[in-house]
Amino acid sequence: MNRVYNFSAGPSMLPLPVLEKAASELVCYGESGMSVMEMSHRSPDYEAIINDAEAMLRKLMNIPDNYKVLFLQGGASTQFAAVPQNLINRTGKADYAVSGQFSGKAFKEAQKLGYDVKCIATTKDDNFDHVPKITKDMVRPDAAYLHICYNNTIYGTKYPEVPEIGDIPLVADLSSCIISEPVDVSKFGVIYAGAQKNMAPAGLTLVIVREDLLNYAEEKMPTMLEWKTMAENGSMYNTPPCYTIYMAKLVYEWILEMGGLEVMKEKNVKKAALLYDYLDSQDYYVAPVKKCSRSMMNVTFVTGDADLDKKFASEASKAGLKNLKGHRSVGGMRASIYNAMPYEGVEALVAFMKDFAKNNPKA
Amino acid sequence: MNRVYNFSAGPSMLPLPVLEKAASELVCYGESGMSVMEMSHRSPDYEAIINDAEAMLRKLMNIPDNYKVLFLQGGASTQFAAVPQNLINRTGKADYAVSGQFSGKAFKEAQKLGYDVKCIATTKDDNFDHVPKITKDMVRPDAAYLHICYNNTIYGTKYPEVPEIGDIPLVADLSSCIISEPVDVSKFGVIYAGAQKNMAPAGLTLVIVREDLLNYAEEKMPTMLEWKTMAENGSMYNTPPCYTIYMAKLVYEWILEMGGLEVMKEKNVKKAALLYDYLDSQDYYVAPVKKCSRSMMNVTFVTGDADLDKKFASEASKAGLKNLKGHRSVGGMRASIYNAMPYEGVEALVAFMKDFAKNNPKA
Repeated sequence: MNRVYNFSAGPSMLPLPVLEKAASELVCYGESGMSVMEMSHRSPDYEAIINDAEAMLRKLMNIPDNYKVLFLQGGASTQFAAVPQNLINRTGKADYAVSGQFSGKAFKEAQKLGYDVKCIATTKDDNFDHVPKITKDMVRPDAAYLHICYNNTIYGTKYPEVPEIGDIPLVADLSSCIISEPVDVSKFGVIYAGAQKNMAPAGLTLVIVREDLLNYAEEKMPTMLEWKTMAENGSMYNTPPCYTIYMAKLVYEWILEMGGLEVMKEKNVKKAALLYDYLDSQDYYVAPVKKCSRSMMNVTFVTGDADLDKKFASEASKAGLKNLKGHRSVGGMRASIYNAMPYEGVEALVAFMKDFAKNNPKA
Repeated sequence: MNRVYNFSAGPSMLPLPVLEKAASELVCYGESGMSVMEMSHRSPDYEAIINDAEAMLRKLMNIPDNYKVLFLQGGASTQFAAVPQNLINRTGKADYAVSGQFSGKAFKEAQKLGYDVKCIATTKDDNFDHVPKITKDMVRPDAAYLHICYNNTIYGTKYPEVPEIGDIPLVADLSSCIISEPVDVSKFGVIYAGAQKNMAPAGLTLVIVREDLLNYAEEKMPTMLEWKTMAENGSMYNTPPCYTIYMAKLVYEWILEMGGLEVMKEKNVKKAALLYDYLDSQDYYVAPVKKCSRSMMNVTFVTGDADLDKKFASEASKAGLKNLKGHRSVGGMRASIYNAMPYEGVEALVAFMKDFAKNNPKA
């Protein structure tokens, strides 16, 4: 069976060598006589795996020592509640920038929980075709934190740089861009990310939190959502999603072996440039996102004709280019080209786009 | 590499045919050209998997139509908070029976969240060597629910039958006995279970909830913990732990193919009898649990000498009988003999126990 090019926004492609390694040791891991899926999370074999995963991620992202790394469950959506519940008591209020659907959900979740939260910037009126410009003076000086979504999967936008907001902790959802390029972790108070785009199968949520931010949790909140409890128990307050963490470890290892995040970024820049350069060179397809906010991971485009868009996704799928249909709330097309998407996949997509444009002239 | 007999309390053994099937289709699933790990949770291929998983579980457990089946994340520990947050508003108060560590944690979590909860029965003073007898008159008539842990993994106890408490919804943690034998689901308001003992790798939590109990959720609770939200979205309010659900599906399939839960129970009864009959036939080892409360899944025993216990676990491990050390809070030995443990594993354990007793006479 030939493998396809899978442009899904998440869950999404995993590196083939990672899948092959996982398959080869699925039934018996090393000398353990059992699958990683069967290991007690308290066993030396498994402890080596989770410790390696953390050490590799720390190396990959150059995570400072005063940050805790947590391997959790529940997805970024669970963090939409955990963020205010863990941090609001710093000052009693918090600010949000809304640059798309998920940052909007994060804001609404904090409102639902009854907190004093303010949306300080949004690009909703522009249909989220760019991210807001955020400056320090926009954030309330007594905000417990500012929450942003760094890369917006659905719209295909990303902040061109980390907003500078002084001493106010920046809390950022990096689900769709984590480990795609180096980031300066020290500029964030908290980074969180669902793993199912760039790191592992679905079912793992990464939280990277500065230690001084572990002390503001609500008393009446679910223990399982308390970062401090998880930090104090090495992500093992209860049984962690062991196998998914093992898969993440294999992915980290794959990137480290190729040279780390600088090399990863180079590859991602090259892939994205191939697609954006083509989009900019013609007028059959339109890329709706403003150039200043373009995502390197999720590239959106439309033909301007909903029927043609539909035909495009359908024919691309038949050609082995899967999941190019845009998010149901937006329409059009979206190519998610995460770390595991090879350059050849983007080449195949651009070739298909050219053919499709030629074979389907607009009226 | 020979596979060992893994007596871990969880994560624990998975059926070898399931692991082999998973390994064989890990890189490419059917005609999809991708791994299940890479599939969009909204794709037809994946929807077939999760729908099959639910249909198979419904068949296996004979789940009535007025119950929802939810595939969630966060482990049973997350449900310790979710249970009161989803149900307390039925009446404003709830009752708990504490028969071990996890039911104690569930009770404490509800207290921590500030709810009016009452422990109506506990066997703590007997070191949890049996489960309490629960009758209807012990439960407050206006309790929103009664919470029990049906099988206590750490102590090796189980309720001999489902407590009869009339119209008050019974909420039960079945993490360590689910799908080990038939249960009458209609006797429960809510069943929940971490998957990592009898169903799948860690990272999946099953909730089976009667529909009329979906309408009492707190307003100010994390959306991700709301059963109603998850039920209305077919467990896909956000990305579910897709691959772990797929593994659960393979396990359900394995049991259905062998004839369902009646057959599974027969096998489990036979395995447990082999071990308990041996324990009852000699006096080198002592089984601390009262016969009325013995678990079929977790069998605890001690030599009465902590050093000998330590030596036992260590030598057993060298003989390929892994993870027999009792829980760190209890000591002694514990053999978890879930569905996937073959009869031959228990035979090997009993043979080892006999040899060990002969070779290590007590002073």
